[in-house]
Amino acid sequence: MKELLAGIDVVDDPDVLEGLSHDDAEWAPYGKALAAVRPRTTEDVRRVVAACAERKVPIVPRGAGTGLSGGANAVDGAMILDLSKMNRIVGIDAENLTVTVQPGVVNNDLKAAVAEHGLWYPPDPASAPWSTIGGNVSTNAGGLCCLKYGVTRDYVLGLEAVVGGPAGAYGTVVRLGRRTTKGVSGYDLAGLFTGSEGTFGVITEITLRLRPARREAPRTVVGAFGSVVAAGEAVAAITRAGLLPAALELLDRTCLEAVENWKHLGLESDAAALLLAQLDLPGAAGDEEATAVAEVFRAAGALWAEQSTDEIEAEALFAARRLAYPALERLGPVLTEDVCVPRSRVPDMLSAIEQIAARHGTTIATIAHAGDGNLHPLILAPAGDEGARRAAQAAFEEMLGAAIAMGGTVTGEHGVGLLKRAGMRQELDPGVLAMQVAVKQTLDPLNLFNPGKVIG
Amino acid sequence: MKELLAGIDVVDDPDVLEGLSHDDAEWAPYGKALAAVRPRTTEDVRRVVAACAERKVPIVPRGAGTGLSGGANAVDGAMILDLSKMNRIVGIDAENLTVTVQPGVVNNDLKAAVAEHGLWYPPDPASAPWSTIGGNVSTNAGGLCCLKYGVTRDYVLGLEAVVGGPAGAYGTVVRLGRRTTKGVSGYDLAGLFTGSEGTFGVITEITLRLRPARREAPRTVVGAFGSVVAAGEAVAAITRAGLLPAALELLDRTCLEAVENWKHLGLESDAAALLLAQLDLPGAAGDEEATAVAEVFRAAGALWAEQSTDEIEAEALFAARRLAYPALERLGPVLTEDVCVPRSRVPDMLSAIEQIAARHGTTIATIAHAGDGNLHPLILAPAGDEGARRAAQAAFEEMLGAAIAMGGTVTGEHGVGLLKRAGMRQELDPGVLAMQVAVKQTLDPLNLFNPGKVIG
Repeated sequence: MKELLAGIDVVDDPDVLEGLSHDDAEWAPYGKALAAVRPRTTEDVRRVVAACAERKVPIVPRGAGTGLSGGANAVDGAMILDLSKMNRIVGIDAENLTVTVQPGVVNNDLKAAVAEHGLWYPPDPASAPWSTIGGNVSTNAGGLCCLKYGVTRDYVLGLEAVVGGPAGAYGTVVRLGRRTTKGVSGYDLAGLFTGSEGTFGVITEITLRLRPARREAPRTVVGAFGSVVAAGEAVAAITRAGLLPAALELLDRTCLEAVENWKHLGLESDAAALLLAQLDLPGAAGDEEATAVAEVFRAAGALWAEQSTDEIEAEALFAARRLAYPALERLGPVLTEDVCVPRSRVPDMLSAIEQIAARHGTTIATIAHAGDGNLHPLILAPAGDEGARRAAQAAFEEMLGAAIAMGGTVTGEHGVGLLKRAGMRQELDPGVLAMQVAVKQTLDPLNLFNPGKVIG
Repeated sequence: MKELLAGIDVVDDPDVLEGLSHDDAEWAPYGKALAAVRPRTTEDVRRVVAACAERKVPIVPRGAGTGLSGGANAVDGAMILDLSKMNRIVGIDAENLTVTVQPGVVNNDLKAAVAEHGLWYPPDPASAPWSTIGGNVSTNAGGLCCLKYGVTRDYVLGLEAVVGGPAGAYGTVVRLGRRTTKGVSGYDLAGLFTGSEGTFGVITEITLRLRPARREAPRTVVGAFGSVVAAGEAVAAITRAGLLPAALELLDRTCLEAVENWKHLGLESDAAALLLAQLDLPGAAGDEEATAVAEVFRAAGALWAEQSTDEIEAEALFAARRLAYPALERLGPVLTEDVCVPRSRVPDMLSAIEQIAARHGTTIATIAHAGDGNLHPLILAPAGDEGARRAAQAAFEEMLGAAIAMGGTVTGEHGVGLLKRAGMRQELDPGVLAMQVAVKQTLDPLNLFNPGKVIG
């Protein structure tokens, strides 16, 4: 193998390899990898895939490892493809509102680079300071502003990928999708690869759609509520009122306290839950939108609701939202839920979460892209406490069932990976699962690309 | 067969059957169908598919037959599934901004129904008064406002379909996708079915995302240009200026005259081309946007450019845009092109079209979703003139080559159907074509669903 990989960085230090063998998902199992490589070009990836196929070595691609479902976890004997060195912005095409990047470019680095051209890449998972575009595409990452601006899928125009199977020998490079804004020439394979968690091939280049930058800073409206369920009712009321914020986030008291104790941002945490709305209509329409949102919050029973006039304060609140996950992780292992329910069921789901927490005696902190119905209950379990761990696991599974019963899904944006495989089997009907398996077998007949993930 | 289909409307009148055996694509061949059925329920479709599979009868689904690529054309011995009677709006869920419909619902009927709830379904192909949502989903239809609001694909959340192959026997009903705004539970099969032109199965129900209705009428800015290429330069300048109209349409003089001679809307047609921009930012921001667009038009060399202050006039202009195709069809057979190029190449493509028309001595009228780079050169050929027909065909193929050479695609929104199969083979690399064929064979191993279309 080594000579086949000459000139490519190979990692075999056991500690480094161990670190590269899993993502950020607590409790998702991972195996013992053979080695890791750090390709820098598509040609490097092509050679690695061809060499692995020759020896039937499974290939596990990864970016920054910020995933929360175990999608980047190694299987025994796998070659890990660490794509973080493939971090070149290949080209920004301001005339056509597109950017082409290697998969290892960090989301926020991409945002910053295109901002210099007056352009904006909206998808903003909370991991944006660390996570890579390749990982974002592989999981079809969401984020805060997808309420108004859509998810990663809505921005992927074209992909280059190293594949095997019908396209040719393992190690064949293909270009899927297009560079134009529209196009229906053949089946939408770029869309199919988006969210496929590396199970069809290795993505080596991505062309993304961009938008013109927003001309003014968005407005922020904060509402404080006496219970998380009351906050959920306000979310449903926002939709009913025909309002479309750029983001509508929920943070409960446990999350706020965890962030405040860590970062001392000066956040008050007397309320049971805060809703943060970001409004970005320009000019006077934006002011009207902000006023309307605050009014809906008040009418829905907010303790208080007001437009933040202080940009630093507004930024601190959204920073708190983004920092909630790492802040809670400091307190011990966190099992992250990612259910998504129809918006009208957000209050019901929040209520179900409280009941499940009570029933299992677990602490569950909740952050949510509430406007999308996408909730992230974070189940806390002290390290080493086996009983707490079992209770957390039971609560986790029960929340999946509750979401499905409400017409929801077990994963809104984190992906199936390893942690949601059982949930997915609960959610999808057997015919659909069989179609998924068949498509995987067709595009990866040797089952070498990230085996065991999604439909494994 | 007849007893298997008891209770389902069967059409065997040869004239009616002939009319149901093709869509609106000139010159696309069609075969002699066995019969047509008009199912009213998913169960009807299930029975038809099962009965056809038993006898290996190919199944050709169709909606209103407004397609322009031959995607709904019969093959010999086919059973035509006319879904136009499955036109029930199953449910409007205003709380969750979704609507669920049967496939035969007409686009504009859907728009009108959701408008009563203060909601908006943006995709607006020019065929919206006649074309069905099932057809729109099957071709991933675009339209005028996809520049800002995306194509049909961006609105499809979930599908019910009658399939065969891995899911079970032909006639198995599956639910793909979801009802929530986000979701990544398994591969995106609903996305894969969208734009697959009925080649994977028959779509029997569709859940679509909606948006809150716009609160005020959009503004219209009209620019008149001395040449179509000059109009194309103005389109590129709009993007460079960071402006994002809801629609940005081009009509050349031939189109304007054809509409005016037919409908007498009072359109002036002294300019070589008009650009119509629709701007929908609310309030003062919308006025500023309209002013900025008019200024860009003037700076790009418009003969004149102004905001239409007369709503009836503005409506007439967009009506002219929508009527251009039928107006030209009155003059004789029209071969419709649907290339899409990067926006910056719109002037080059318009120039190439003029050169191709001159070279082949054909008349080509052009309408375009110019802001998207999606051009519809309409090649006119007098009925019965075989030489003109050959010239038109040659011009058609040459335009596909020109679009591909500019980094474009052979079909922006009409679909591959029969007319773009050769163009698609030119556009996509052999590996990608092989993947497409493999996916089709996997999901439809008997090749019963709309055989010969897309990858045929």
